[in-house]
Amino acid sequence: VNVPAAPDLGYERLDFRIGLNPGRLLSDGVPWWDYRKAEELVAADPDANWFDYWARLSRHYEPIGRDALAAGRELSGGRWLWLASMCSQYAQFIWFHEPERREDEQRRKVQLYRDAAPHLSPPAERIEIPFEGTTITSYLRLPPAAAGPVACVVLLGGLESTKEESYLFENLLLERGMATFAFDGPGQGEMFFDVKLLPDFHRYASAVVDYLVERPEIDPGRLGVLGRSLGGYYALHCAAADARLKAAVCWGGTFDLSDFNIMPPHIARGFLYVSGHEVLARGREYLQEAIDLTELAPELRCPTMIMNGRLDAIFSTKQIAKFERHLVNAHIDYYLEDEGIHCAHNLWHVVRPRLADWLAERLPDAADRP
Amino acid sequence: VNVPAAPDLGYERLDFRIGLNPGRLLSDGVPWWDYRKAEELVAADPDANWFDYWARLSRHYEPIGRDALAAGRELSGGRWLWLASMCSQYAQFIWFHEPERREDEQRRKVQLYRDAAPHLSPPAERIEIPFEGTTITSYLRLPPAAAGPVACVVLLGGLESTKEESYLFENLLLERGMATFAFDGPGQGEMFFDVKLLPDFHRYASAVVDYLVERPEIDPGRLGVLGRSLGGYYALHCAAADARLKAAVCWGGTFDLSDFNIMPPHIARGFLYVSGHEVLARGREYLQEAIDLTELAPELRCPTMIMNGRLDAIFSTKQIAKFERHLVNAHIDYYLEDEGIHCAHNLWHVVRPRLADWLAERLPDAADRP
Repeated sequence: VNVPAAPDLGYERLDFRIGLNPGRLLSDGVPWWDYRKAEELVAADPDANWFDYWARLSRHYEPIGRDALAAGRELSGGRWLWLASMCSQYAQFIWFHEPERREDEQRRKVQLYRDAAPHLSPPAERIEIPFEGTTITSYLRLPPAAAGPVACVVLLGGLESTKEESYLFENLLLERGMATFAFDGPGQGEMFFDVKLLPDFHRYASAVVDYLVERPEIDPGRLGVLGRSLGGYYALHCAAADARLKAAVCWGGTFDLSDFNIMPPHIARGFLYVSGHEVLARGREYLQEAIDLTELAPELRCPTMIMNGRLDAIFSTKQIAKFERHLVNAHIDYYLEDEGIHCAHNLWHVVRPRLADWLAERLPDAADRP
Repeated sequence: VNVPAAPDLGYERLDFRIGLNPGRLLSDGVPWWDYRKAEELVAADPDANWFDYWARLSRHYEPIGRDALAAGRELSGGRWLWLASMCSQYAQFIWFHEPERREDEQRRKVQLYRDAAPHLSPPAERIEIPFEGTTITSYLRLPPAAAGPVACVVLLGGLESTKEESYLFENLLLERGMATFAFDGPGQGEMFFDVKLLPDFHRYASAVVDYLVERPEIDPGRLGVLGRSLGGYYALHCAAADARLKAAVCWGGTFDLSDFNIMPPHIARGFLYVSGHEVLARGREYLQEAIDLTELAPELRCPTMIMNGRLDAIFSTKQIAKFERHLVNAHIDYYLEDEGIHCAHNLWHVVRPRLADWLAERLPDAADRP
C-alpha cells in the first residue's frame, strides 16, 4: 500500500484556507458576511492571518452584546456575546504555533460564552462537577414549559471543539423537548489546562451521568449521548461503558486512529497538541492506544446512529468497515451523505434535524412509546 | 446632473449573478451550500439558468419534507417544506421573461408554504379576509404561552417578496413575545393575480387591522407595522393613514420613485411587472404617482424607525433627505449601516435583532411600560 510519509508536524503557521472549514464555521454560528470577507481576504493574500481576523471580530461583537444587555435587550445581548465567543473560537482554531496566544483566546471564548449563558433562550446553566482533583465544567439547558422530567442528551466536542460550539445544535434538541448537557472532557476546552487527552474519557462522562440522574428535571431513564468528530468516537466509547446511556450518535467519528499517518497534518498536529505530546513517534503510539474502540465495542448495546459524509478527508471510509465488523451487539443505523464532507458540515440543514429527530425517537416519553 | 439613460426594460433573461443577492437569499433561509454551489455554477457558466437551478432544489427538498411529516417528524417536515418554498421563491425571483413559468412557480411556492404552515413552531394560521371582491391571504403566528393579549406586528413584503419570506424574521418577533401577521397586498404574491400595484395599499392594511382588533389573542392597542424594501414605503404609508398602528419600521424603503431612472434595470422592470404596465413611459408615470409619500407624510405621528444600508444600489440616499424633510410630526430613529447594501441584507445578524428589539420596546405590555 502506498502510505504517504509521516506528515510534517511542526508548529508552522497554517494557510488561512485551512481555518475556513466550509460549512462548519457557518453551521456553528459565524456570520456569513464575516465568513465571506474572510474568503475574499485570503484570496487576495494567502498569508492573511486568521487569528487576527477573527479576534478583531470577537472584539467588534462583544461591546454590541454588552451594550444590548445594559439596555435590557436580553435575547440580542446573549446572542451577540455568543457570536463574539464563536469568533474567538475560530481565531484560536488549530492555531498551534503560538500556544500562549491560542490559550488566551480560548479563555476569552470561555468567558464570553459564560457571560452569554444566562441570557440564551432557554438559558444555559453553568455547572461545575468536581472530579478527581479537577472540575468538569458544563452547561445544562432545559426545554421550557416541560410537563415532567425530560430526556437529556449529553453532547461531546471533538479535537478542536468544546462545549461552547454546540449552542445551535442544542436548540434543535430543545425544541424537540429534550434537555442538553455539554461539557469539556480531557484535552478539551477548560479541562485541557488541567487534563490532556486520556484513554478513559468515558469515566468523565459517567461522572456527568451521576450528576444528571440526580437532577429532578431530568428522566434518568432517558439519557442519550452525541459526539461530533473525535467526540463521535467518545460517544460510542461512553455508551459502551455506561449502560445508563440509552442512545448514541457518532457524528463524523472514528473507530480508531489507524488513519493517523494519512490525516491532514494539522489534524495530526492537533492530536499531539491535546495529548500534550511533542515527539511524533511517541505521541502517535500513545494516541493509537488511547483512541481505539476494539476492546469495548462488543459492550455497545444501545440503539446507535453512525453518521458522516462520504467525502470526509479526516477519517477514512475504512472506519465504517471497522464499525460494521466490531459493533455486533447494537442496532446501528448508518447514515452517510454522498456529498458530505467531514461530519457533513456542508449539509447541516438536512443532517442536523435528522440527528435531532433520531434522538427524540430513541428517548421518547411514556406517552410517545409504541 | 448626469442622469443615465432610461434603462432597457425588455424581457430579456438576466445574468444569474443578479439573482444571487448577497445576504438576502441566505437571511431568508436558503441553505448556504446550495447558495455556494450556485456561485460556483455561475462562475463556470455565466449563462447558467437560475430558474432551473432553484426549481430543481425545490423539488429535491419537497419529498424530504413530506417524508418527514409522514413519519411524524413535524418540526423537520415543516422546516423542509418551507425550505422548498424558499427555493421556488428564488427560482421565480425577478424572472420576468417567462411569465407563465414564473407564475406557476409562484403558485408552487404558495402551496409549499401553505403545507408547511401548520407544522412551523409556532404554527402559522392561514387567514383569508374577503375585501372588495378579492381575498387578502395571510398568516398569523402567535407567541406560545402568552399570559394575555399580545402585541402584533403586521409584516409587509416589497416588490419581489411576499408573506412567505418573513418566516425567519417572524421568529425574532415571536421569541420577543409579539405576534406576527404577514399578508400579500396589491401586486404581491397571491394577490398579484387579482390586483396589481395600487396607490392605496394602505386600505388593504386597514382591512387587516380591522381583522386583528377583533382577535382576542391580540391587544388592539399594540399593533405595529414593518415593511421591507418597497414594503418599507408601504409601512410608513399605512401608519400615516391608520392611527391604530402605533409603531412603524421602514426597512430599506423609499419616500417615492424619483430614483426610477437610475435604478438597476431589473428593478424598474419589476415595478412595471407588478403594476401590470408594459409601456415604459406610461408605467413610470403611473408608478411615480402611486408611490409617493409627500401627501400623507405629515399624518405620520407614531414612533418610526427608518433603516437601510448606505450602499443601497436601489434607493438612493436622497430618499433619506426626503424623509427628514417631510416626516415632521413623528419621532424618527434613523439607523444606517455604513457597510450595508439594500436593506443591509448582508448584515442580518446585527440588523434583524435590532429591528425586533425596537418594535418590542415601542409595543410594550402594561408591566413593561415606563
